[in-house]
Amino acid sequence: MELFERRPDRRKGMASAGRSINLALSVRGLHALREAGLFERIMKIAVPMKGRMMHAPNGELTFQRYGKDDSEVISAVLRSELNQALMKAAEQHEGVKIHFNQRCTGMDFKTGEIELRDEVTGARRAQPTEHVIGTDGSASAIRMDMLKAGRFNFSQEYLAHGYKELIIPAGASGAYQMEKHALHIWPRQTYMLIALPNIDGSFAGIFFFQHEGEPSFASLDNEAKVLQFFQQQFADAVPLMPDLRETYFANPTGTMVTIKCEPWHFEGKVLLMGDAAHAIVPFFGQGVNCCFEDCVFFNQCLEQHGANWSEVFEAFERLRKPNTDALADLALENFVEMRDRVADPRFLLKKKVERALEEKFPELFTPKYSLVTFRRGPYAEALAKGKVQDRILEALCASIERVEDLNWEEAGRLLQQLQDPNAA
Amino acid sequence: MELFERRPDRRKGMASAGRSINLALSVRGLHALREAGLFERIMKIAVPMKGRMMHAPNGELTFQRYGKDDSEVISAVLRSELNQALMKAAEQHEGVKIHFNQRCTGMDFKTGEIELRDEVTGARRAQPTEHVIGTDGSASAIRMDMLKAGRFNFSQEYLAHGYKELIIPAGASGAYQMEKHALHIWPRQTYMLIALPNIDGSFAGIFFFQHEGEPSFASLDNEAKVLQFFQQQFADAVPLMPDLRETYFANPTGTMVTIKCEPWHFEGKVLLMGDAAHAIVPFFGQGVNCCFEDCVFFNQCLEQHGANWSEVFEAFERLRKPNTDALADLALENFVEMRDRVADPRFLLKKKVERALEEKFPELFTPKYSLVTFRRGPYAEALAKGKVQDRILEALCASIERVEDLNWEEAGRLLQQLQDPNAA
Repeated sequence: MELFERRPDRRKGMASAGRSINLALSVRGLHALREAGLFERIMKIAVPMKGRMMHAPNGELTFQRYGKDDSEVISAVLRSELNQALMKAAEQHEGVKIHFNQRCTGMDFKTGEIELRDEVTGARRAQPTEHVIGTDGSASAIRMDMLKAGRFNFSQEYLAHGYKELIIPAGASGAYQMEKHALHIWPRQTYMLIALPNIDGSFAGIFFFQHEGEPSFASLDNEAKVLQFFQQQFADAVPLMPDLRETYFANPTGTMVTIKCEPWHFEGKVLLMGDAAHAIVPFFGQGVNCCFEDCVFFNQCLEQHGANWSEVFEAFERLRKPNTDALADLALENFVEMRDRVADPRFLLKKKVERALEEKFPELFTPKYSLVTFRRGPYAEALAKGKVQDRILEALCASIERVEDLNWEEAGRLLQQLQDPNAA
Repeated sequence: MELFERRPDRRKGMASAGRSINLALSVRGLHALREAGLFERIMKIAVPMKGRMMHAPNGELTFQRYGKDDSEVISAVLRSELNQALMKAAEQHEGVKIHFNQRCTGMDFKTGEIELRDEVTGARRAQPTEHVIGTDGSASAIRMDMLKAGRFNFSQEYLAHGYKELIIPAGASGAYQMEKHALHIWPRQTYMLIALPNIDGSFAGIFFFQHEGEPSFASLDNEAKVLQFFQQQFADAVPLMPDLRETYFANPTGTMVTIKCEPWHFEGKVLLMGDAAHAIVPFFGQGVNCCFEDCVFFNQCLEQHGANWSEVFEAFERLRKPNTDALADLALENFVEMRDRVADPRFLLKKKVERALEEKFPELFTPKYSLVTFRRGPYAEALAKGKVQDRILEALCASIERVEDLNWEEAGRLLQQLQDPNAA
């Protein structure tokens, strides 16, 4: 198997900074790593995050656990580290050869040739192929050629928000300057700052902000404005980011896009996988988990259909597309939740009620967040269950102020009804 | 103004056949033609259609009027004739020059150059421009380059159905072989045949059918199967199509796509218009009317903003996009109506009730079809009103079998409620 990689071999040079959101591995991604024999290796470079730490404008902190206990955590990993571990593991397979600096610029579906451009020399060449797995990302050149080939359904939808990476360096002797085992959020309704712990004591900060309007990336157009804005909105974070003014303008502003398309495959010659087939916005921390899960399902399809590639590709799409479509919606929903609702006391009450229901009725109720993050059931099921459960939560919380006032009898009755397949 | 046209000058050669759905002009298109001083000229080549003539499997005919009387009709026109009349009129303007056989293959937004390929010689060249109106159709090359330029929202959604043009020739001495002033429909639930009158006594037939499945274009793979299928499904049409077997396989199978995108413009340099910006499926007969209406609104924007192109383009998109989005939905809805619901007695009752309401309460009620076809109010308003009115119609028709049994008091009350802006 030949692997053509656009980027240089990072083991030989420096990683590119400022262009990638940190990764949060959870059960789906970890399961795939376990299947690939990489679990222990990756966990060594991961920092477990037990919940969200909300930073109010006055600096007040509120912690909200992700799972029911410390067994349900998500793990922050540096993208570059994960990348390198995967490359190394791939190369240890006989017959796998990685070609670096090879950008795929398109595919001729008649001849089966892919077009490659050497990113160092600029030389272009046509590479004959038998079967292509197109994992060339959200701006996939292969998908662009499928788009022109006819009867290809496609949508790309950009968020009005962009993002920018910022750094919270480690303190003296590598000490974490905030709670280590949390994903920190400064929710400010239409925008937010988040920070994920790195293994070296630093935090990777990401600032999500509108591209245009007031305020926006466009309106904060000099260092003074940036500093003033951050001091007003993220007062407790500013002292932790000594290089804020420089990195803010040095780092590029990223865009976020949701991509859906179909079919993912063409005559057994090519299959789109990962972001090329289903790019999502990053707010559920599922991008890497979903793409790793693609591999788990692809292996299953291979086992089932052998080397009949046309069948393998078709089975894979049939299994995955309803779920990646659902995840796209889940990820968009979670953006509003993170930047706005986590600061709302009613929302936090609902989260507590969720936890109480899960504890009391473990067979009947698992919160949507947990279905996505700590279970491996289909995303589409998590989305559908989440909607129904949310109506129940709304009903149960409507007239109470504290989780102690929950009507348990009513709760049990409503959850029991859910089990009746005709009720939902 | 330079007009670069992909096709050859049809006045000098033959028209291409079998690739274009006949056009049905209604009030929006006619208004634009009137503004352009072309109304009389085009009406000479148009055949008025007063309603739908449904052909049941047993040959039984049912007529359903489009409008309230003979003043509300739609006009069938041959695309090629309309095209030539427009070209001729454009050339009569001083400073307008049409370049034929010039295919636009892309645009460089930095330099403002469009790339053109001469369809006869194959020669390529870059054409400098100041401002481009990109009307290069549903497969727009300019839009494809906007797609790659970043933060461009885009969707293309193909129907599972395709279409094929068929011909019902004129009878002896140019006689129409079916009712002349009707759009004929053979509704068969998942597929349909339609026929529009031409000025020469022939009808342009269009067969809408699934690409794949059973039955489909894929499954009818020889002349015997086609003939048997048509004889079973469209028995009364077969004798009128002596060349059915040959034309069925000679004519290509067309695809139908809905395209939405935004923004339509870029820095005053380029504006997408027509199908390039908002391609729709053909089932409301509004494609040409909507595109002609684009011109009316573009003229208004020009008058308002003068030569400030960036403002003109922005104002145009703001005015039009909500309405072309709405029309896309209306056109998809109408596909189900035409191929399936027009054969349903309950649907026909509802249409009669609509007509009765319109007659009795002309100030309060105009059917959705008429809002789209015989009025010039915004499409988005027609879509929204249509939804509300449909609920009222459902309620009024639920317990009656004949229009005579309509509860007029209830009807008046419900329609009056609609006028209250808080009620809808």
